[in-house]
Amino acid sequence: MAATELPSSGEDWLQTLHEAADAGDEARFARYVADVALPELARALETFPYDERAHLLANSGVTDSARLLLYLNRDAAVHLATELGVPALAEAAQDLNASELAELTDVLDGELAHGLLERCDIVRRREVESLLAYDEGTAARIMHRDVVTVRADAAIAVVHRYLQRRQALPANTDQLMVIDRDGRFRGVLAVTDLFTAEPTASVGDVMDAEALIIEPEHDQHAIMRLFLDRDLLSAPVVAPDGNLLGRIIASDVMDLVEDRAEHAMLARDGLDEDTDLFAPLIASARKRAIWLGINLGTAFLAAAVIGQFEATLEALVALAVLMPVVASMGGIAGSQTLSLAIRGLAQGQILPTNRNWLLGKEVGIGALNGVLWSLVVGGIAGLWYLNAGLGVVIGIALIINMIAAAIAGIIVPLVLGRFGFDPAISGPVVLTTVTDVVGFLSFLGLATLFLL
Amino acid sequence: MAATELPSSGEDWLQTLHEAADAGDEARFARYVADVALPELARALETFPYDERAHLLANSGVTDSARLLLYLNRDAAVHLATELGVPALAEAAQDLNASELAELTDVLDGELAHGLLERCDIVRRREVESLLAYDEGTAARIMHRDVVTVRADAAIAVVHRYLQRRQALPANTDQLMVIDRDGRFRGVLAVTDLFTAEPTASVGDVMDAEALIIEPEHDQHAIMRLFLDRDLLSAPVVAPDGNLLGRIIASDVMDLVEDRAEHAMLARDGLDEDTDLFAPLIASARKRAIWLGINLGTAFLAAAVIGQFEATLEALVALAVLMPVVASMGGIAGSQTLSLAIRGLAQGQILPTNRNWLLGKEVGIGALNGVLWSLVVGGIAGLWYLNAGLGVVIGIALIINMIAAAIAGIIVPLVLGRFGFDPAISGPVVLTTVTDVVGFLSFLGLATLFLL
Repeated sequence: MAATELPSSGEDWLQTLHEAADAGDEARFARYVADVALPELARALETFPYDERAHLLANSGVTDSARLLLYLNRDAAVHLATELGVPALAEAAQDLNASELAELTDVLDGELAHGLLERCDIVRRREVESLLAYDEGTAARIMHRDVVTVRADAAIAVVHRYLQRRQALPANTDQLMVIDRDGRFRGVLAVTDLFTAEPTASVGDVMDAEALIIEPEHDQHAIMRLFLDRDLLSAPVVAPDGNLLGRIIASDVMDLVEDRAEHAMLARDGLDEDTDLFAPLIASARKRAIWLGINLGTAFLAAAVIGQFEATLEALVALAVLMPVVASMGGIAGSQTLSLAIRGLAQGQILPTNRNWLLGKEVGIGALNGVLWSLVVGGIAGLWYLNAGLGVVIGIALIINMIAAAIAGIIVPLVLGRFGFDPAISGPVVLTTVTDVVGFLSFLGLATLFLL
Repeated sequence: MAATELPSSGEDWLQTLHEAADAGDEARFARYVADVALPELARALETFPYDERAHLLANSGVTDSARLLLYLNRDAAVHLATELGVPALAEAAQDLNASELAELTDVLDGELAHGLLERCDIVRRREVESLLAYDEGTAARIMHRDVVTVRADAAIAVVHRYLQRRQALPANTDQLMVIDRDGRFRGVLAVTDLFTAEPTASVGDVMDAEALIIEPEHDQHAIMRLFLDRDLLSAPVVAPDGNLLGRIIASDVMDLVEDRAEHAMLARDGLDEDTDLFAPLIASARKRAIWLGINLGTAFLAAAVIGQFEATLEALVALAVLMPVVASMGGIAGSQTLSLAIRGLAQGQILPTNRNWLLGKEVGIGALNGVLWSLVVGGIAGLWYLNAGLGVVIGIALIINMIAAAIAGIIVPLVLGRFGFDPAISGPVVLTTVTDVVGFLSFLGLATLFLL
């Protein structure tokens, strides 16, 4: 069988690559990376220390270094680009199309981006700058311009001849874009329909005039939903005036979906999808320090609450032992509600009409699980210290905190979203603050009232 | 312009849908859902209470109810299928292809699935059962069988005539599959190449014989990587003996990537991507209770550690006030390392050769940020209680806990993965246990030794 196998053991390949690099065997290294795709090479390069990457790349025989930067995480891309230097980078960037170059200048930012654009001719620079006027992640920034257009009034047989005269068609062309005499978008024509349609029929009769179109300002969320919901392989990007601008391909959208997966995973740790696991120590430590500082603020807020009850704690040390249980159970319950609410908001499922129902339901769940687990926690606490009152107090505090957690889990992302914050990043911090404060306050407060 | 606009305001549409439903205006409801895609309809239906869904669907004019079930989350699908009943479901399921039917029986499970398969003829049932022999998420379960095959020894002009004779080609056909006389897979032929190739050339000369192939057992992770790395729109599925089985399309892979995004977001709350935000109260409460119970175990473990130091806490109540700060900072730092390690493992970037380097680096970050924040925390604590010793002790405990967090953040997912657990689910629980226990133990232990 001629076809090559799916690389099923990426880790073994990467391990061999490391061995070649460690042995200083550059020829072997170059051979191993010769036919891998750029995203694979980027992931591999990320596993080497920063100061080895430029050297490895230079000796790898890979000429596509500018495009490779687009697949590295931001930190790694900036570092490698700095090592390469502007002249070499500008040379390699000549192969990039305008969208790729716009993305690269966006990633590199500052002097590198400036140097890169300065070395472009004026036409290309204008083109890149017009793309940069759109926000990152909008359709205009993602689209390809390599569309194949045909006229609506042409006959199918004419399209056949036209395509045969072209040397090659752009990769991943599953449909042609149909325009009218004035260049306005009219619809799409599946390439496969060229075979099954009558040769004498006109393109306008065969095309799909109801194809969904994307506008240049549409954001990645809308684009993802369109592709996911409609099983598209590509879609046209059309300006509001009907001007055909380009096309978006499924593989680009897949990259967006994957970025979102990484974002979802890392946001609540205050990290972004561009965080480099293999970045140097100092740079990594600095990035993470800020998040620790923010969380330190909330931790001291909780400590301040506890500090109000020093006399109570001195009188009954069991409270100090048990108080983390109340706070932690609220945190877990609230985090469940919060994550579901963030997903519901992202999918547009939380509406003015069902918001109150949802809040009521989550409060009900909090109350139900609060009662259930308060029996367990109260029982254990009461038996541990042979103090029935302590059991009752911790049980009631737990119920209060779990209901508060449910309310916060729905309200916090709604409010954060309203003020333009990403609830996936800031939601967990705010929620933990609520459940810590309410947990300590209710438990120690009730204890002060009823146990002393 | 004839083309319809991208539905840019999904929430408004959903709001209108709710208003129609609340007003009991079934005709209006049916009109609103008439031309939305099934995934959109599924998301909309999920926002209605369980007991309204079957009624709404029955009056919506949607006939594709069996396929709709595939887009609902599992809980909602099982509930709706039960409402529909086996006879109606079997009727609607006649439109499904074998892969879809296999997926549906997998989702429904139990009696419903059994009833559904019983009503199929024997050929179809065998086909579905042979698919169910493969694990969920493998290529065999995801692929489509509607491939267009051509012979390698045919001339391009013959392929043209063959395609013209077919009534229609399967949707999203961007390439034809090339087989030899014995039906073995030989390569792929891009549909666009049919135009640019010489009519007299043979398919074998024009095709891509090096196309990557997917084996039926390949799992979704390998399939996602292939599509993401190679920008494919479709790929052939070929048995080890060279037999062509089907094709996988980019839109299916996009669904896999999206499921993984939801999994990444919900796993650490002990939820799965099938959790229904709008499920009834009791069912939701039951699902979430188990996770709370697991976390309760770890909370009591931490409490037991604190309980060992009751005498210390009684002597110095400030310790009770400050101890959550030490535990919480360790938890935050460890969670950052853990999330990055889980991502690195998923991408195959953590290897025997760089594991120790990585561990050393994370410990370095923990130590560096530990020292930095210990100065802040120690300073605040020392000033708060005018007790320099307390400041030193909490500072040292913080450094210890942050180093422990870094080690746990790397080791825990490696060990969990080795034993077949999903580190995204169980990792955070184990990590929090470590940082709570080490945090309380180091702080209260050091205080017992040096402050009393």
